[in-house]
Parts: sequence; structure tokens; C-alpha cells
Amino acid sequence: MKKVSIGIIGAGRIGQLHASNILNSSLLQLIAISDVYTDHLKGTIYEQQVPIITNHSEELINNPEIDAIFICSSTDTHALYIKAAARAGKHIFCEKPVSFEIEETKEALQVVEEAGVKFQVGFNRRFDKHFRRVHEVVKSGKIGEPHIIKVSSRDPEAPPEEYVKRSGGMFMDMTIHDFDMVRYLSGSEVTEVSVNAANLVDPMFGTHGDVDTALITLTFENGAMAMIDNSRQAVYGYDQRVEVFGSNGVVSAENEAQTNVQIATKDSVELDHPKYFFLDRYKDAYVEEIKEFAEAILEDKPLTCSGEDGYKAELLALAAKRSWEEKRSVSLTEVNTVNI
Amino acid sequence: MKKVSIGIIGAGRIGQLHASNILNSSLLQLIAISDVYTDHLKGTIYEQQVPIITNHSEELINNPEIDAIFICSSTDTHALYIKAAARAGKHIFCEKPVSFEIEETKEALQVVEEAGVKFQVGFNRRFDKHFRRVHEVVKSGKIGEPHIIKVSSRDPEAPPEEYVKRSGGMFMDMTIHDFDMVRYLSGSEVTEVSVNAANLVDPMFGTHGDVDTALITLTFENGAMAMIDNSRQAVYGYDQRVEVFGSNGVVSAENEAQTNVQIATKDSVELDHPKYFFLDRYKDAYVEEIKEFAEAILEDKPLTCSGEDGYKAELLALAAKRSWEEKRSVSLTEVNTVNI
Amino acid sequence: MKKVSIGIIGAGRIGQLHASNILNSSLLQLIAISDVYTDHLKGTIYEQQVPIITNHSEELINNPEIDAIFICSSTDTHALYIKAAARAGKHIFCEKPVSFEIEETKEALQVVEEAGVKFQVGFNRRFDKHFRRVHEVVKSGKIGEPHIIKVSSRDPEAPPEEYVKRSGGMFMDMTIHDFDMVRYLSGSEVTEVSVNAANLVDPMFGTHGDVDTALITLTFENGAMAMIDNSRQAVYGYDQRVEVFGSNGVVSAENEAQTNVQIATKDSVELDHPKYFFLDRYKDAYVEEIKEFAEAILEDKPLTCSGEDGYKAELLALAAKRSWEEKRSVSLTEVNTVNI
Amino acid sequence: MKKVSIGIIGAGRIGQLHASNILNSSLLQLIAISDVYTDHLKGTIYEQQVPIITNHSEELINNPEIDAIFICSSTDTHALYIKAAARAGKHIFCEKPVSFEIEETKEALQVVEEAGVKFQVGFNRRFDKHFRRVHEVVKSGKIGEPHIIKVSSRDPEAPPEEYVKRSGGMFMDMTIHDFDMVRYLSGSEVTEVSVNAANLVDPMFGTHGDVDTALITLTFENGAMAMIDNSRQAVYGYDQRVEVFGSNGVVSAENEAQTNVQIATKDSVELDHPKYFFLDRYKDAYVEEIKEFAEAILEDKPLTCSGEDGYKAELLALAAKRSWEEKRSVSLTEVNTVNI
Repeated sequence: MKKVSIGIIGAGRIGQLHASNILNSSLLQLIAISDVYTDHLKGTIYEQQVPIITNHSEELINNPEIDAIFICSSTDTHALYIKAAARAGKHIFCEKPVSFEIEETKEALQVVEEAGVKFQVGFNRRFDKHFRRVHEVVKSGKIGEPHIIKVSSRDPEAPPEEYVKRSGGMFMDMTIHDFDMVRYLSGSEVTEVSVNAANLVDPMFGTHGDVDTALITLTFENGAMAMIDNSRQAVYGYDQRVEVFGSNGVVSAENEAQTNVQIATKDSVELDHPKYFFLDRYKDAYVEEIKEFAEAILEDKPLTCSGEDGYKAELLALAAKRSWEEKRSVSLTEVNTVNI
Repeated sequence: MKKVSIGIIGAGRIGQLHASNILNSSLLQLIAISDVYTDHLKGTIYEQQVPIITNHSEELINNPEIDAIFICSSTDTHALYIKAAARAGKHIFCEKPVSFEIEETKEALQVVEEAGVKFQVGFNRRFDKHFRRVHEVVKSGKIGEPHIIKVSSRDPEAPPEEYVKRSGGMFMDMTIHDFDMVRYLSGSEVTEVSVNAANLVDPMFGTHGDVDTALITLTFENGAMAMIDNSRQAVYGYDQRVEVFGSNGVVSAENEAQTNVQIATKDSVELDHPKYFFLDRYKDAYVEEIKEFAEAILEDKPLTCSGEDGYKAELLALAAKRSWEEKRSVSLTEVNTVNI
Repeated sequence: MKKVSIGIIGAGRIGQLHASNILNSSLLQLIAISDVYTDHLKGTIYEQQVPIITNHSEELINNPEIDAIFICSSTDTHALYIKAAARAGKHIFCEKPVSFEIEETKEALQVVEEAGVKFQVGFNRRFDKHFRRVHEVVKSGKIGEPHIIKVSSRDPEAPPEEYVKRSGGMFMDMTIHDFDMVRYLSGSEVTEVSVNAANLVDPMFGTHGDVDTALITLTFENGAMAMIDNSRQAVYGYDQRVEVFGSNGVVSAENEAQTNVQIATKDSVELDHPKYFFLDRYKDAYVEEIKEFAEAILEDKPLTCSGEDGYKAELLALAAKRSWEEKRSVSLTEVNTVNI
Repeated sequence: MKKVSIGIIGAGRIGQLHASNILNSSLLQLIAISDVYTDHLKGTIYEQQVPIITNHSEELINNPEIDAIFICSSTDTHALYIKAAARAGKHIFCEKPVSFEIEETKEALQVVEEAGVKFQVGFNRRFDKHFRRVHEVVKSGKIGEPHIIKVSSRDPEAPPEEYVKRSGGMFMDMTIHDFDMVRYLSGSEVTEVSVNAANLVDPMFGTHGDVDTALITLTFENGAMAMIDNSRQAVYGYDQRVEVFGSNGVVSAENEAQTNVQIATKDSVELDHPKYFFLDRYKDAYVEEIKEFAEAILEDKPLTCSGEDGYKAELLALAAKRSWEEKRSVSLTEVNTVNI
């Protein structure tokens, strides 16, 4: 059976995760990895099993044996690689966000469109079995018209200061997943964003002009409302829950616990903690994500999350940032200055 | 043992509930009930067991054998009865809201203060064992500083149109409980209110200028934030949940199910519905509420929810209404035109 | 409305519980309480509200104003009072077990039958909303033919030695409720009993020839099997769960927790304990039990648990005891030496 | 890094599962597969990725490059392959049961012991994260001395008749996992077995002298008791739960649901079904099982489940069969005619 052959640009944590999943996949084949630094790959399974390890991304982009490029490099380089890969006729899987500048994202996606290649953005949570089931239940009409969508999304621990400096801010770095999730669950487009945020977890965030705690309210075209709550630090574990309340019912997804074990003694009745790390919580989702990318290419099917989804989530992050800065509700039309 | 002797003004649904609980109480004694209509009490246990049934509230207020008055009449009459009862030296239990006009509420509470009588407002949910436990856990410091408070409060079915006309609007009638709840759980005062609301359940609400669905964001003095979500119609039952997320953990209270029974077949795995009716869900809370009122009088102890709590919840309802009308965040100082 | 007027024989813990529930009931009226000792009732609500408090049970049995007798005295006196009350034409509510001797039980129930009075035995768990729902689901056929029935029944703490001496042994005193429960849930009769038991909790039980831990296997006429597990001491609370597994599914009832609160911190995820005390766990069941007794009398309806149910549970306790003593499976025909 | 090189004998469902997991493992390397039939492997990843596919098991056993043999053939061939592999100095992973004849098992294990090779039996459930956690909690002493151990183990659907004919009977084929589990959880040895069983699911089982439903009671050296309940058909999914109740508390493991999604409508409150298929439920356990086998070889560590564990579970299956046939409790000394 034909496999989709892959080159990965960027061999950091997420690049290595995809590399590992591709090596175990029956639909994808890993041909090459490029990174400006490759010393850390010495002696790893990547060196042993990946034919090409290089410091030059052009080697991947110009390699006729490579069908698709995974862009896992730092966000400020995404647009450049997207355009180069698209022009070389490669399909593209790009980590989120597409870029920090909405104009840049627009331009990159236009090149993609002109090239006619597949483009998937890395919103892994759409491939989580729990959230996908919620999405399907909403879509089936079982709970009627959606009225209220709630997303709790809290990281187990704050990222290091170096990361915060380059993250683009909490809305662009972390909440962007939740912006995509409310679009995915509601099946409708956001018209307005209103943010209440604060720096409660660690003053470090504030020194970089960032927040670490937020309540974000969104209004949708179909009349529904959504509320996202974020924290950079949930000491009890990675907290990832959603709920969609509608005219005929409610559907929700709880956290995955580390085990289903319960212990009761005189002093306490204890359950196990939620999974702590995102690579653990979304382990299967990351596998499913690239499997569906491969299938979309092999069978020429539409993608589960497209460039447009990446673009719209970025718009929401921009609107949220402006809402926070200007202490007012922001309409999507205010930030959506370009058409796509 | 000395019992607190009670007269109830208003023999509607909530008045009868209190009457029934007082009849079963070992701390309170029901001496009299007054209502403009009393025909519906004929042949009931109230007629059989309550010495005085009258159409004249003065008979209660002037009765020297009565220690305390329960005000369960329509909201527009509350202030009048509060003042009369306070001036007669009676302790007062008053259903929520104290009044529809904040100036009126203020004036009534001033009379209460001058009279030196006890005054409790009917925020029954403070006496619910689940919410009380959440309150205690927060207060204990176990979850650290509160950052995000979430209250889901959804009625099982929409009230009749006649009720909606006189309800004072969803914020004053229904959300007022949730406004009190976020104050109870946070242990801090709200500084700002921002509302996103809509008429999604039934156009009838809109014809009376009311909403039926809302997301309400609140900011507290201590830096915490809260989110209330409301719907007038949760078809699966009375949905009453809270969560307080803090620097050291999270505490939450789930709905009470009708039974703890689970049924699994080839087709489904089913749990029982949440309790459907507020009198069922808060049955024990209503009993506890009047027990603590009696104890506060008998032992001259402070009340769990005071006139000030009633006043502040009304302020929040006013701020919410203004936020909704003016589509902007409203500071409490804008509506709090009076000092208490 | 006519109420059923009641006399209670035996004013210990369970007698007082029924007295209190009758005082709060709209269907029953408490006329008299008798006990050999009545000093402990001085100054209580019973003295204040019950017209007759006496040391002579005949005053109740011969009182023409009394419709029904509650027998809450020590088990060795039950048969005597049953026969006297039946002959006086009183309906009877009798605490479990009917007696310690199966012949005595038979004889008492025959007198009841001849007198044509109602007789209810105090298997309060049949009136628990959770177990009743399980019973109804099984009866509805939703889970098909019952194959395996499981009952976990564990007390929170061991009874005092004085009680153990007079209890009739764990099977007669504690497991008797579970024997009734498996009959109630299966809708079939037991044919065989096999016991595995031990003295693991406290050597005190062993010194009185009793056990404190048991696994009891039962076979039913309809082919189903049941397993009861008992312990005299579950340090985490009163553990009362059932499960019925059948050809088309499974239905189960979990414990009631003290609250539905969950607390998650870095160190633990905690739920609340199960209700600890049987009066707390079965509070509503005790109310429902006497309500249905009253209705059966007022409307001449059949009882939910009859003398026959009491008799059959005793047979099972006897069979269990013999199985334990003789280390073998015991057929019900071996102990059922009398017909009823 | 050195990998353990593997040859698999038997390419049926379980053999292919191990083959697939070995191909994805960083500790094991799949050199060869043998089976009497190999046509079904044509065109699969096994043909593509496994160097040797043969009909002759000797090719594996005599291959000096192979460190360990996985025996996944039919049970009646296990002992033969065990002895041959052990004599060739290969480590052995053998599926359960070791054999159908306890003498044969004993003999095979003696050859293993003399050869000094590692021998692991395929009790995959010991590697399930939920059950392992329960085991660890018991071992930690947190719940005190174990008193009652409960194992629910029900297959989602009955096996085909062809399988039933060769399965060795329910106790040897299915319950053997549960016999191992109660030993694993209790940390003690069984002294006595008592079985109550029936043919309730499908008469087909009865025609082959087998049962499909059972309650099995076990007594342990340390005084604890266990109860296993089995059914060949739980229509709602694969039901795999355990509970250990002890002097200081209780620990239990619930089923894994397919998702953590809950749907509430007017008609029902629904959860997702338990995982249906054993390969789904124990997916991670099968991976962990071979990982620990590899580590035991590479680091010369003791195994989590040894030949002795396989032997003892078989003894329990024999005792259960005899208990069922002779309708009496059977002591382990009656079946344990050999020493190991």
C-alpha cells in the first residue's frame, strides 16, 4: 500500500512527537527531518530510522520523494515554510498558530490555495475521542439548538519564562485551541468576543504584558454563547472539559483520569488525578490527527481542520487581545480586515 | 424549651412551604398566617393546625405573642411589611428579593437596623449541604486563593407568562440567587459585572423585554473572576452546579440525582435524572434555613444571610440589567448610589 | 381525613425513630407508647405530644382507639405481642426479625392470618428509593432474565458486645436485611445457601460464637445466583450497594454520599464519604415504610413486605447459620420444616 | 541499544497482536514467525517486516539469533514448545494456560527451571494500569488487611461453538485470568474453592458440558475471602472490575468507558458504554506486558508473572471444575498433587 512520505521541519518536542507517531504509522513514512540544530537527535531512533537528517529545510522542500511537509518550527518561521512548501507542490501539516500576524497568515494561505495542496493546522483536540463525540452529538441534533457552550482549559503548570516571551501571549498560544474548540462544537461562527483576564498565577506573566487567568465570552451567529475559562496553572492536573447546553439537552466531556481507581478509608475517599501532561492526555489524538491527514491525501478527502480554521482561530485570539487591552467587547469584523 | 413563634404573611407556594416546615420544626411554632386570599387554605393542615388564619397582616404584626414575621407575599409589598414588622419589634425572615427598587430596599433595611431586630433574606441555597461544603472548603484555604468561580443555574422549565410579567426580570428573579452564591463562595465583593444574554428559549420572554439565557461575568475585589450561566429551561432537570478554582486546587458540587441507579444494556448506559423541582432539590435547605433563623434568635447569633446580603445581590441584579441594556461592563459603584 | 392511630411497644432507638416519623406524618397518629422503662422519655417531644406513655403494653393492645401496633421491643418478645395484638384485632408493624425461632414465627403469623389483620415486617430497605428503582427495573424486564445478583452490605462500625450477645448472630441480625433484598430484587425464591464466613474484624465476635465477615452464595428457583458480602466494620462508612446482572443488561445502585462535592489538589482528588449511619442512609425509607403501611390499612391494599417475607428471610438466616456450622451448602427444604 | 530478538510460534489473533506490539517496541525485535498455516500472513505488515515466516517451529527454536520465544499456538502444543525452547536456552513468553494437564504443566516448568531461562505467562491483566494500581494500594497497607476481594469478569459476547469445544471449559479458559487476579490482589494463596455455576446464557455451552455463568468463592491462607462472578455474555460490554475491602478501607477499579461523554435529555441521562473488546480494553496492558518481559531479560530482573503463577492459576481452575462437578468445596491440597 502506498504511504504518504513526510519531511518534518523542526525537531523540537512537537516535531519529535509527530516523528515518532509517523514511524509507527501504516499510512505515513518519514523520509527526512530538518532543523537548524540536529545534534540532539544523535543516537536517537530518529537518527537510526530516518534516512535524511539535515540542517537545511530546502533539502526537504525540494526532495521529489516527499509528498508532504510537517511544519513544527518556531511560529515566526511558519509562513515562510508554508509558502515554500506549497510552491513546491507539497501538502502541508502546520502546527498552530499559523503565524503571529493575521496578514501573514492570509498571505500564506493564499499561496496554499493557489498551489492546490492540502493544508491541515495542528488543532489536535478535534481528534480527541471525547470532544469528537461531543461534536457529533451536537451535530446530530440530539441536544437541539446549542445555547451555551462551556470550555474549561487549564494547563497543569506555567510554562518557563523563555517560552512566555515568545509565545505570542496566552490568547494566541493557549486559548487558540479553545477558540477552535468552540467553533468546532458550536458549528457556527463567532461574531463578538469579550475578555475578562488577570495575572493571578505568577507575576512573571505580567512583567511580559501577559495574563495567566481568563474568562472569555463569545457570541455566535446562530445566537449561541460560549464561555472559555483558562488558567496557566491547575495544580491537580491538565483540566480539559467541555459542555454544550441546548434546547433539548446537554452534552459534556469530563477529564480522563490516570486510572479508574477509588480508595476509601476513614480519612478520605480518593479518585486518581486527571492526566497531567498534554502528551499523555492527547496521545491518541495526535496519532489520529496525522492518520486523517494521510487519509485526506491518499483518498483526496476534505480535512478535519483546514487553513481557514487556523485563520479564524487567530482572528479570535486577536479579538480577545484587543478586548482585553481596550476593556470592551470586540466584534470580529473589527479584526477581520482581510477576506479569505 | 422555648420556641420562636411565627406569623407568616403570604400563603402562596413558598409561604406554604415555610408553614409546613415550621409545623414540623422543634424550634419554631406557627401562630398565624395572613393573606389577602385565604380560601385556598380551607381543609388543609394549615387550617387545622394554625391558630390564626386571617386576611389582615396587622393581626400578625400587632400580635404580642408573635416573635418573628415571615414575609412571603409578592415582592412589591415586602418593604411595607418589613418596615411595619421591624417597628413592631418583630424579627424578620423575608423572601428574595427584598424589593424591586434599591432605594426602597435601603430604606427598609435602615428601619430594620434602627429597630435592632434580626433580618434574614431567603437565599435558601446557602443552606444546601453541597454548596455549604464548597463554601467551607474555600474558606478553609484548602484550594488556596480563589481565581475562577463558576455557577451553572438552569431552571427545568420556563415560568408562566403571568409570572414573567411580574418577576422583575430574569436577573432580579432567578440570577439573584446566583449573585448571592458567588459572593458566598468567593468571600469577596464584586466590583464589575458584564452580561451576555439572549432570548433563545421562548419568544414570550422577549415580548416582555426579558431574556431567558445568559452568561454573566463578574470581577471581585480580591482579583477573582466568576461566571454564571443561566437558562430558563434545562429539559433534563434542575441544573445547579458550582465550581471554585484556586491557586491550590479546585472544589465543585455536582447535581443531586433522583437515585444513584445505573442501567446498562446493549443500547445505552443510563443514569437517573437530576432532581427536577426546586422544592425537591432544596427540600433540606429550606428546613435548615429556618432552623438557623430560629437559632440566631434564640441564641442571639449572627445570621448566615443578612439584609446586607439581600441588598448586595439586588445591586448585582441592577448592574447586570444595566450591563445588558447598555451592552457594556458595569461597575458596582455606578449602581450603588446609597450607602448601607 | 382519617388517620391510622398507632400504639408503639418498645421505646428504644428504633421505636423512637418510628414515633418521631409518626408525629410528622399526615396519615398516622401516635396515641400511645409503652415500654418497661419510660424514664428516658421524660422531657422529650414524646412526653409532650403523645397522649399515653405507659409501662403496660396491654393498655395499648386493649385500647379501642388504637388501630395498629408497632412492635419495636426486643426480638424475644415479638411473638407474644404479635399474637396479643392480632387477637385484639390490631394491624401490626413488627421490626425484624419476627422471632429467633422459626416455629415461633410460624405460630405468630398463623394467629395474624386467622385474625385477618395487616402485618408488615420492618424491612426498611425495600422502601429506599435506590433499591426500589432497581427492583422496578428488574421487574420491567429491561435487563432480561436475572442471572447474578450482588449485594454489598457492610456496617460502618461493629456493635457493642452486649448487643452481639443478644443479636441472634450476624446472619439473623444483619444479613437478614440482605436475604430479604435478594428475594426482593430477584423476584424468585432461594433454593440453596452456601456460606463462607470468618472472624476478621474483632475477636470479640468469635468469643460469642459469631462471625463478622461473610460471603454468602444463594441459588434461586429461576436459575439465578446471588452473592451477599457482609462486614461488621467498613471504616469509610455504611456501604450498601446492589447489582442485578441479567441476560439483557445490568442495573446497580451506588452508595449515597454525604455531599456531591469533589476537591482536587496537587495531593489528591477527594469525594465525600458515604453516609455513615443507617438512620441517615435510610431516613426517607423509614418515612416511606410507615406511609405505605398506613395506606395499606386505609385503602385495604396489599403490603410491600408481609409476614411471609419476614418468615422467608428468617429461613435464609437459619440455612446460612447451618451452612456455616456444617461447612456445606444447605437446601432450603432442610430448614423449612413448616408450611406457611 | 541491544534489543531482545523474538520468534513467535503461532500466528493467530493473539500471536499477531504480540507481533504488532513487538514491531512497535524499542526493546524487542521480531525475527521470525512460525505457524502450521502462514497463508493468512501474505501481504500483511508481518510479511513485509518480519525476516523469517515459516511453517517450521524448529527454525525459530534452533535460530541462534533468537533470544526468546513467544508461544501463542493452541494450548495442547504449549508444553512441547516450552520444553524445546527451554532446552535450546531461549527465554519464553507463553500464553495462558500453560497446558490443560497439571502434570504436563509441572513437567514443562521443571525443564524451564533446569534450563535457567526466563518464563513469563500471559496474564495480561496484571499489567493493566487500573488493576496494578489496586495491587499497589493493597500492598502499601493503605486499606489494612484484606478481608473481601471481589472480581467481576464478564465477556461481552459468547465465543463460537468451535472455540468452546477446545477451550478446556470456562474455568480454564476464562476464569483462569480471575484466579490469577485474586492471587495478585490478595498477596496470599488460596486454600479452598467453592463454585456455584449454571448454563444460563446459551444451551450450546451445556451441550459441551460447560457452564457460562458462575459465582466462585475462594478462601486464602491469610484469612481473606474472594468472590469471582463470571458471565460469558454481558451485552453492555466487557465488564472487568475489582474491589479489595480491608480492615482500614476499600480500593476498587471501575470499567474504562469508551469516552467520558455524558448526554442528558428529557428522556435520559446517558454515559458511554464500557470498552467492548478485550484487545481494546487491554491494549496498553499488552504493550506493557512485553515491555516488562524484555526488561526482565535485558536487566536480569524477576518477572511480574512467572511459571509458578501460571501453575497456581491452573490448580485453581482444576479445583473449580471439581467443585462444580462434585457440588462441594474443594481444598487446594486435593488438586495440588505435585510440588513445584
